[in-house]
Amino acid sequence: MRLFSAPQLNPASESGWRRRWFDIIHRTDTPPSRRFDLLLVWAILASVLVVMVDSVQRIHVAWASWFYVVEWGFTLLFTAEYVLRLLVVRRPLRYAFSIWGIIDLLAILPSYISFFVPGAQSLLVVRVLRLLRVFRILKLTRYIEESGVLMLALWRSRRKILLFLSMVVTIAIIAGALMYVIEGPAYGFSNIPTSMYWAVVTMATVGFGDIVPHTTLGRFITSALILVGYSILAVPTGIYTAELAGTMLRERRQDTRGCVVCGHEGHEAKAHYCNRCGHELPEPLEP
Amino acid sequence: MRLFSAPQLNPASESGWRRRWFDIIHRTDTPPSRRFDLLLVWAILASVLVVMVDSVQRIHVAWASWFYVVEWGFTLLFTAEYVLRLLVVRRPLRYAFSIWGIIDLLAILPSYISFFVPGAQSLLVVRVLRLLRVFRILKLTRYIEESGVLMLALWRSRRKILLFLSMVVTIAIIAGALMYVIEGPAYGFSNIPTSMYWAVVTMATVGFGDIVPHTTLGRFITSALILVGYSILAVPTGIYTAELAGTMLRERRQDTRGCVVCGHEGHEAKAHYCNRCGHELPEPLEP
Amino acid sequence: MRLFSAPQLNPASESGWRRRWFDIIHRTDTPPSRRFDLLLVWAILASVLVVMVDSVQRIHVAWASWFYVVEWGFTLLFTAEYVLRLLVVRRPLRYAFSIWGIIDLLAILPSYISFFVPGAQSLLVVRVLRLLRVFRILKLTRYIEESGVLMLALWRSRRKILLFLSMVVTIAIIAGALMYVIEGPAYGFSNIPTSMYWAVVTMATVGFGDIVPHTTLGRFITSALILVGYSILAVPTGIYTAELAGTMLRERRQDTRGCVVCGHEGHEAKAHYCNRCGHELPEPLEP
Amino acid sequence: MRLFSAPQLNPASESGWRRRWFDIIHRTDTPPSRRFDLLLVWAILASVLVVMVDSVQRIHVAWASWFYVVEWGFTLLFTAEYVLRLLVVRRPLRYAFSIWGIIDLLAILPSYISFFVPGAQSLLVVRVLRLLRVFRILKLTRYIEESGVLMLALWRSRRKILLFLSMVVTIAIIAGALMYVIEGPAYGFSNIPTSMYWAVVTMATVGFGDIVPHTTLGRFITSALILVGYSILAVPTGIYTAELAGTMLRERRQDTRGCVVCGHEGHEAKAHYCNRCGHELPEPLEP
Repeated sequence: MRLFSAPQLNPASESGWRRRWFDIIHRTDTPPSRRFDLLLVWAILASVLVVMVDSVQRIHVAWASWFYVVEWGFTLLFTAEYVLRLLVVRRPLRYAFSIWGIIDLLAILPSYISFFVPGAQSLLVVRVLRLLRVFRILKLTRYIEESGVLMLALWRSRRKILLFLSMVVTIAIIAGALMYVIEGPAYGFSNIPTSMYWAVVTMATVGFGDIVPHTTLGRFITSALILVGYSILAVPTGIYTAELAGTMLRERRQDTRGCVVCGHEGHEAKAHYCNRCGHELPEPLEP
Repeated sequence: MRLFSAPQLNPASESGWRRRWFDIIHRTDTPPSRRFDLLLVWAILASVLVVMVDSVQRIHVAWASWFYVVEWGFTLLFTAEYVLRLLVVRRPLRYAFSIWGIIDLLAILPSYISFFVPGAQSLLVVRVLRLLRVFRILKLTRYIEESGVLMLALWRSRRKILLFLSMVVTIAIIAGALMYVIEGPAYGFSNIPTSMYWAVVTMATVGFGDIVPHTTLGRFITSALILVGYSILAVPTGIYTAELAGTMLRERRQDTRGCVVCGHEGHEAKAHYCNRCGHELPEPLEP
Repeated sequence: MRLFSAPQLNPASESGWRRRWFDIIHRTDTPPSRRFDLLLVWAILASVLVVMVDSVQRIHVAWASWFYVVEWGFTLLFTAEYVLRLLVVRRPLRYAFSIWGIIDLLAILPSYISFFVPGAQSLLVVRVLRLLRVFRILKLTRYIEESGVLMLALWRSRRKILLFLSMVVTIAIIAGALMYVIEGPAYGFSNIPTSMYWAVVTMATVGFGDIVPHTTLGRFITSALILVGYSILAVPTGIYTAELAGTMLRERRQDTRGCVVCGHEGHEAKAHYCNRCGHELPEPLEP
Repeated sequence: MRLFSAPQLNPASESGWRRRWFDIIHRTDTPPSRRFDLLLVWAILASVLVVMVDSVQRIHVAWASWFYVVEWGFTLLFTAEYVLRLLVVRRPLRYAFSIWGIIDLLAILPSYISFFVPGAQSLLVVRVLRLLRVFRILKLTRYIEESGVLMLALWRSRRKILLFLSMVVTIAIIAGALMYVIEGPAYGFSNIPTSMYWAVVTMATVGFGDIVPHTTLGRFITSALILVGYSILAVPTGIYTAELAGTMLRERRQDTRGCVVCGHEGHEAKAHYCNRCGHELPEPLEP
């Protein structure tokens, strides 16, 4: 169930600066490591904000040179961090080719490429992927527990969701082909892929309105598609809710203590005595 | 509860090539049958992709002759498969008039018709129905279990969903008539069917925006319709989730112990005695 | 919990034609009453269809005189039914002023008014309310059980839903006032009521697109409103689902038989023997 | 869990007019206090209605002077109420800087400011915040119980909802940056913040249609975003429903029997012995 493997990395040498930096980077319970995490999170958020704001034409014209300097500051900082990570882990290549390692690289690579390759300006947008790095850092904090329950429920219902997605795609193709024949290119249903795009937009109740049916039959089929689509789109909510409720219920029921006298099980987590015979229960295990 | 009856077909002769092809087509646990299924799934997906891509005007102009050849290749392959299916089953007519038989026929018929009848080009779109055939093949794989739970919940809540749909249609008619009177043809509410189309689009929160209220009263009624509609549209999600949660719960609780005396199954997890004949049950296995 | 009181009406005379017609109208288990219901349902559906189709300008021009005749046929039929209902019930006035009595009257009144008052054409649309009468007839059939569960859950969560609606209206007013100040009349936010209409349309994820924010601040607030709105709109689904699941669970658990030997309760509805001590259980009551 | 602390205020003097007015303002079970609450609720609703209606240009022109007078009437009434509240509570400053105190002040301040500062007309809209004051008054009534369950479930799922919101923002930033590069300013995706606004509007299925994709790749990504977004937006409904169902279940199961020895409450419905001290419990009441 582990989508991203935790960096179980040991430093090359047990002592010295590698050991110290490994602890700063990978632990979360010492003051230096907390300061490091905090610095990194703020740097990431600030750098993403700069990328976003820099895309606004009016602001770009006025502040371009400032943003250029700031951006290189962030790039050098993240480069230093990346090199440091490579140095302190036992198997640097394994880190470099892990998901997080690639994301770390993508966070700095665009700046260097656009420096050497003049036309690669549009690549700079890749830098917003830096945002994903915030999740790695937050992952080590107290939110992991909640995230675990949410992810577990998602994982448990993966096949149902896949089945649901293939149903949606099938309906989109059939409805799209139908509307392509009925409405035709005159009303924007230019071809089947475009009609499928319309069908997905309609079924998911987004309804941009850039393409709309104009014929009576087309409108009738649209109404039917909406109602069918709505019923089907209730499915993932249903799947997920049911799975989540089950997961939460099971977590809550974790008490497995049995009464030594009557063997009754299923006590409340806080119970001290068996609720059937009144005998004392064993102490609950620490969670 | 079986929406599509499984093809329980026996070959005319117990041995020979019919027997071999029946196994290839209808079994899933031998290497040849797996290869057959895989070939078919890929052929179907490829042919649907060709239909879709061919509808794009730009691509059609450039590749029309290629697509023509490829399409006839698929048609001949599916025709061969259709004939083979007819030959190996015990009752060919029953297969031919079953849902799957008709879908198989619709997968190949449009190509032949458009070959003989010049004006029947728009019929070619029917070929996207081939996609449904993928479901038959996948049906025999491991997804059937998940699909079963989803379908069972859907089937159990069919009456509630029907009731809900008739409620939606009623509200759409009344709201549509109301808006037709209030807004009138000047703002696109040309007649009651059009207004009903608008009401469905609005209630289901699609909101294309091709028809919108302009008068104050119309906007007020729209707001009310949205809120009422939203509350009502929460119903199918609720129905489905509750039913699904129940189905999943029951499945999980299904104790697999059978009574040694009367063979009754489906006891509660905590039961010590068979609830039909009263005989002692075997100890439950540790989960 | 009874939203519409069932017509518990006794005929004035115990025998004769009144008795016979009362049975035909109010019972559902005799062949004549079933034929009566069926006739009525089809007449209602046909008359509503005529009203709908007649509103289409093109069809109206061509078929106006035919529809006029057909419509008067339906009006006379429903008038006869209305008079009959008044005659056979013990307290005609009470029926006349009940919800169903008023709906029955509204089904026929517009035709007569438009006959005498020339300008009352738009009143004719009121005739679509006839559709509601179908529910009375269906109410007496097997769907009542499903409807009961749905209604019970709705009724149980009425206060939560009211609270939710007042939250939505409050947010709509505040967000509407905010957008009115930020965007102003230039971009369609002409006044607070219009802005409120926009806020409801946006929050409920309808999003017509007739009024959209154009300023950066307006777009930011819109994004926030959508996310807040979405979280809040998850509430009625949650309320309803939880209530429905509870209602369905409770219905399923209705078995209240206790074992006469060990007193254990909570057996399955189909259990014949106590699952704790194996003693025979009393017969379950008929539901 | 208390979002708004209840006004636990004692009057400066135990007797006299302060005591009487404190009771009128803060109690709900005496006839004068009920009349006071009712008067206030109606005054608030009326004053908000005036603000709303006054924003309609056509009405403003015709009724401006009347609204001016009425508005000052409300302002004076609410000012009197505000002063009264300050006078009767033991710690006026604490009230003045509480959430409710600030809302009470905001309800009257705009009128006075716009009287002295000519250009502050747009500030008058702040007066719709008066509406929030209705909740304080209703808070003291029977709806508090329902509100409590809803709020408790919301509070319990706060971390999951926060996690969900950060997921939505992350996806919006990445999808926004992607669409900015693919579609570009030519089709309205002028910059990343605008693209993010589009991504939120699309993911939440609002779909205004003011900005829509035009390229094939853009439409493909939009379809993917909608499906991913829809699956993710099912999460808060799932979280909330599961939490609400759990909360409602727990409330319903709360056995009201207290242990006669240790006073512990909240036993399971089927418990025979106190699960804290092991003493026998009284027999449960019949439900």
